[in-house]
Formats: sequence, C-alpha cells, structure tokens
Amino acid sequence: MLLNVPRAKDVMRRRGLDALVATTPDNVLYASGRAFRMSNWITHTFAVIAPDRTDRCVLIIPTVRLVLLAQQSIEHLDVVTFGDFFMEQTREIHDSAAVPDVAAFRHLLAEAKVHRNAQEALVSVLAELGLTDASIGIDEMRIAPDVYRSLESALPAARIEPAYAVFREIRLVKTSEEVARLRRAAEIVEQAEETVTGAVGAGVEEQALAELFLHQIIEAKATPGGATIGSGPRSALPVIETYPRRLRDGDLVRYDLSCHVDGYFADTGRTVVIGEPTEEQVAIYAALKLGWNHLFENIKPGARASDLFEGAMSVVRSSGIPHYRRQHLGHAIGLEAYDDLLIAPHETRALEVGMVLNIEVPYYDLGVGGFQIEDTLELTREGPKLFTQQPRELVRR
Amino acid sequence: MLLNVPRAKDVMRRRGLDALVATTPDNVLYASGRAFRMSNWITHTFAVIAPDRTDRCVLIIPTVRLVLLAQQSIEHLDVVTFGDFFMEQTREIHDSAAVPDVAAFRHLLAEAKVHRNAQEALVSVLAELGLTDASIGIDEMRIAPDVYRSLESALPAARIEPAYAVFREIRLVKTSEEVARLRRAAEIVEQAEETVTGAVGAGVEEQALAELFLHQIIEAKATPGGATIGSGPRSALPVIETYPRRLRDGDLVRYDLSCHVDGYFADTGRTVVIGEPTEEQVAIYAALKLGWNHLFENIKPGARASDLFEGAMSVVRSSGIPHYRRQHLGHAIGLEAYDDLLIAPHETRALEVGMVLNIEVPYYDLGVGGFQIEDTLELTREGPKLFTQQPRELVRR
Repeated sequence: MLLNVPRAKDVMRRRGLDALVATTPDNVLYASGRAFRMSNWITHTFAVIAPDRTDRCVLIIPTVRLVLLAQQSIEHLDVVTFGDFFMEQTREIHDSAAVPDVAAFRHLLAEAKVHRNAQEALVSVLAELGLTDASIGIDEMRIAPDVYRSLESALPAARIEPAYAVFREIRLVKTSEEVARLRRAAEIVEQAEETVTGAVGAGVEEQALAELFLHQIIEAKATPGGATIGSGPRSALPVIETYPRRLRDGDLVRYDLSCHVDGYFADTGRTVVIGEPTEEQVAIYAALKLGWNHLFENIKPGARASDLFEGAMSVVRSSGIPHYRRQHLGHAIGLEAYDDLLIAPHETRALEVGMVLNIEVPYYDLGVGGFQIEDTLELTREGPKLFTQQPRELVRR
Repeated sequence: MLLNVPRAKDVMRRRGLDALVATTPDNVLYASGRAFRMSNWITHTFAVIAPDRTDRCVLIIPTVRLVLLAQQSIEHLDVVTFGDFFMEQTREIHDSAAVPDVAAFRHLLAEAKVHRNAQEALVSVLAELGLTDASIGIDEMRIAPDVYRSLESALPAARIEPAYAVFREIRLVKTSEEVARLRRAAEIVEQAEETVTGAVGAGVEEQALAELFLHQIIEAKATPGGATIGSGPRSALPVIETYPRRLRDGDLVRYDLSCHVDGYFADTGRTVVIGEPTEEQVAIYAALKLGWNHLFENIKPGARASDLFEGAMSVVRSSGIPHYRRQHLGHAIGLEAYDDLLIAPHETRALEVGMVLNIEVPYYDLGVGGFQIEDTLELTREGPKLFTQQPRELVRR
C-alpha cells in the first residue's frame, strides 16, 4: 500500500476533512495504487478516500479503463466509471480459463455503474459515502476549474477546499512500499551512474556518456529523468540537456541524474575529475563534503530543516568557500522529484521518522567548474539510512 | 514554428482576446517551442503570446532554467524569470569560445529580470505589454487555482478567462513544422509495428512482442505511449498493459500502438492473423475496411465530422456487422493524443485544410476477438495524405 493510512487519518482530522479526492496522476497512484495514461487534459481520473469511514478507495475512471483493472487485481478498490464504451460479445469466450482478464473485463463491464461524466460520477460516489454535507478536500491541480465549480454547486451542503497540499503533507512520511520503490529507483540510478563513471576519460564525448546513462535506465525498465552530465567549464551548468563537448585531461565532470520507476523518483549527483585534481578543486570539494557531513550527522527526527540548512551553510563557508550561497540543501523526494519539504531557510518544520530526503551540497562556479554531492536517505529511528552508496569523494578517473 | 500565427490571430479576434497565456507543458511548447521538465505541480512555467501586438513569445520560467535556454538558440523568445538561483564566477571562464552555452548562461543570468514568483512575473509581463486592461485568455489546466485568482486581483481592469479550449482550437490546424513532427512520429511507430509483425508467430510470447515494440521506439529516440498488443481472446481487450499469453496458430493479434516524439503523438492500429483466417474473421474485417474506405473517401475540407461518422457507421452496419456500435471513429492528433476534435455523433464542426486526424474503425468482441484499422492523415487541399503506410488488410503471418 502506498497510502499512509494512519498519517492520512491524522492529517485529515487535524484539518477537519472527511474525504480526499485525488486528481493528479501522482495522487491518484498514491490513493489507489494505480497509474493511468491520460489522452488529454480534459480527461479526468479521480480517487476518493475517506479513511475514517472505509478502508476502500473509490476509483473514478473512463469506462474503457476498466480493461486495465481487469489486467491486475483490484483489492481495496471500488470502481465507478463514466463515458460510453461499446464492447460486444456475440459468442462464448474461447478458452476463458486461460485468459482470466478477458472474463474479468466482461464482469467489470457488466457490473459497472456508468455515469455521464467525471463530475457526475464523483458527486454520486460522495453521496453514496454519505458525504454530501461533509468536508471534502479536492486535489485542485488536475481538475478543470469548471468541473471543480460544478462540484460546489452539486454539493451545496458540503465544505469543499483545495487539498493538493494535504496530499503532499500526508505523503511526506513514507510507507514501507514507498520506501522500497524509492530505494529501487536510487539503486537503478546509481547503477547507471557507476557505468557512466566507468566510461569517463579524456577523448570521450559527453554525448556518449548521456546515451550510456539513458540506455542503462531504460534497460532497468525505469523512466529517465534529467541527465545533467557536464565536463570542463560545462560542469558548472546546473541543468544540462545538450552534450556537445569532448572530455579532456584535467576536466571536472559533474553529474545530477534522475529517473523514476513505479511512480517514484531518484535523484543523485557526484563529481569526477580526469587525472589529478588541482589544489583548488580538492579544497572546494573538501568544504562541500564537510557541509554534507554536517547534514548527515544532524539529520534526525525532530531536527528543524532551517537549522540543518544554516548549520551546513556555516560549515561550508568557514571551511574554504566563504562566499557560498544556496537556496536549499536538499528536499523531500517521492512521487514528485521535489516533495513537500525543502532543507531551506524558511522551512521551520521538524523532520519525522519515515521521511525520505535528498541532501545535497552543490557548488556552481562558471570560472572554476561545478561540484555536486547529492544523496537520498530514509529517516529512521536509528538515524539516516542512505539509499545511495557511490563514493562521496572527488572520484579520480 | 509550432504556433499557427494566422490562425491564432483569427481565433483570438473572434473571441475578443488580446493575449494568451500557456500553462500546460503542451501549450508552453506550442507557444514557445520549448519543453521543460517540472519537478512538481507547484512549479509553474508560462508562455505569453499577443500576436496582434508582437511576434515574440515571452517565456516565464524558474531562474535556474535559463541554463536550458543557453543550450539552444532563443530567437522569437523574450524571457522573464522568477525565484532564487545562485551562480558564482570567481575567475574568467576557461576556454569560453569552445563552450558558448557557458558564456550565454552568464549573459542571460546577468540580464535576467528576476521576480519573486511566477504570478508576479506574469503580471509584470502583461503590464509591460500594455495588457493590464486587456482581454487575457489563460490556459486554466496547469496553473494553481490560487495563482489564477491572484492574477484576477492583480489585474482588476483586465478581463481574464479560461483559454485551454482556445489553444486547442488554434492547434487544430497544424503548421508545417507540426506536420513534420507528426509524420516523423507516425513513421517511428510504423517502423516499430513492422518489426513486431515480423516477429508474430505461433509460440511467441506477447511479452516478447511488447518488449520489441518498446525497444524499437526507444532506439528511435521517441517516448513510448500505449502498447496494446493482444492475441487470441485478448485481442478484444481495448487497452493492454500486461502481456501474459503465448501466441497460437489461428490467433488474431490486434495492435493499438502509440509514441510521442518532440511533443507530438503517433497512434496506429492493425490486425494480424496467424495462419488462415476464418470466414467470420474475413467478413468482419471486410466490413470494417469498407467503413474505413468511406471515411477516407469522404474526409475533406468542409466535411462535417458527424456526417463522416454516421456515413461510415451505416456502411459497417450494412456490410456485415449489423450490431456495430462506436463512440467515435477518429480524432484529431497533435500535442495531445486526442486533440480537440472527434469524428463522432455530436461533433458538427467541419474539417479544415491543415488538420491532422486519425481515422479508426475498431471492433471489440470478447467472443470473436478484436480488430483494428487506424491511420493518421493530413487534410490537404488535394485530399487526405496518409502518414501511415502499413497494409490495411488482415495481415497473414
């Protein structure tokens, strides 16, 4: 289960919400366990949870999408559909025991409560759950504004409010299934990174490294995210999507690499040098690593994100980069590459057991080059557990 | 250029709009030519066009994303940014002639008008364009509702209205660059389809066919969309994401295959039979093909979508499938897999030169199997020009 039920109940109670309606693909996946491809922005998919009333999630999808539910199990899910879909059956299903999804699809279609459109389906679901005069949080980010307003008119006794932020607050503390997916994503991105590092050397094209990375991610059946791989002066470019340069002896090579798998993101970064680093490169890396150490040693349940930030900034500034500036030194990670929490000046929330966070201490200098140390970890009662294992040093190649 | 400027002017004049603000990745790409990866739903990117006043597009992006503009040319674009990003330069750029993007990034950063957040940036852009009392259409699908409302307060003299539908109406008539991208996407998906067809045979796993398809799409540097490949009774499943069956002699195999490349979608379908088809299979396919012929022969500028639909439905029903039902027989295709027009009963709009449309005549029968003929074509003055070339017949393997 992706949804953190106890936390959902707790956050919803604190906010006085009886139900939540997911609308973005990320939140629909979170609430229901299912991901759907949408053919345009007017096609809606909703997932309704009301964990104080029922432990089942109600999925609201276009009727044709029942076929995707037939292809997997649908425990914990009720399904309501909308829109025409025509399916014939002019004779018995041939060899139906061998094709259980065909029989399951027939059954789901026969049982389906089909509504005219997504909003009518949602109103009917909320009514059946006895929520017409309840407080309902609606993820406002992937519902057409006119559909949102139509709900307000159709449910005049309900209190309806935006709830994207509520989903994000719940999602901050991960379940074990989420942790497993995030760990797997981190492993995939690191295996790809290791392969890329193995290929770094004078004369190699950036383009070849980028293709190697993409190839590895795809081989692992993950979806590539950003592939920032820059060499020499280009190592200082914070985000990279073109790879025109050939590596030379003495180059810094900076990575910031991402992918997602089963909906969950990975994001890691390292710095490599071809040959021997200069004294300045060694000194900068050492200062950043001390900042990273400060983050890693002080990140724990109860720590305040802004304190972590200020502490690590001081360490880096006093250790060799007096002019060091950063907008943040890390972020929560999950169904979004940036989940709801930043390790940043104005983030006064305290960290909790079960959060999965990236800590990162990058330095971008257009004259000197770019450096990155970025890792993903889980906050456990025993302290931080790293998902990323590649050496945290200025790697020589 | 992706944006159809004359059509944009025409549609906007008809609707009394002075400016349009794109917010979804598709419409931002359409207006500006640029695609950006977003790290969560609270990160905004806007593209503003006011084609009666200026032929430049104003892109509003997080400051760090300037680095991506530095990596490509930015003709026809003005750029305004928001949010902190810290970049150092403690010495001259080494070898700057060889890394023009590093120098360009420095220049863009130095020149950037940096606003506190996306809405302040947008308000400032609209003010500079003299649009504070104008009619402004805002693509309402990828802007947080509170940001949308903040614009209404910040621009009390402006008339602000939702404009996702306006973008879609403009996008219905493609520019030559869009046609080229759609044609390329169709070629990629058909090459993959041809490879899959070459591998179809008794004893082959559906899973192997699906992986072959994905591999081909990725090799072509496109992004896989749906890969519906179903055999035997599973050929009748309208959408497929699992591939558990092994092909047998006499099986129907139905494809519905999609990918996108440079933002533009392909979507095509065919039907294969292993060995000799039965008389019933031949008869059903023949009826569907007559329906397809009707669509192809009657699709032209001025034709009404609903007439096309009704005509082809009659042909199929009178040619061997009297119970034939369908919700639509095709759709516009472009930056969304389903652009704004369906070949369907209630679509009374007439077709226009420059539209790119899919025509499709599928039949799903859980007892008999599934059939598909789906093609992409451009509507030219001389008639329809097909992008898809695979044989429209019940292919024997």
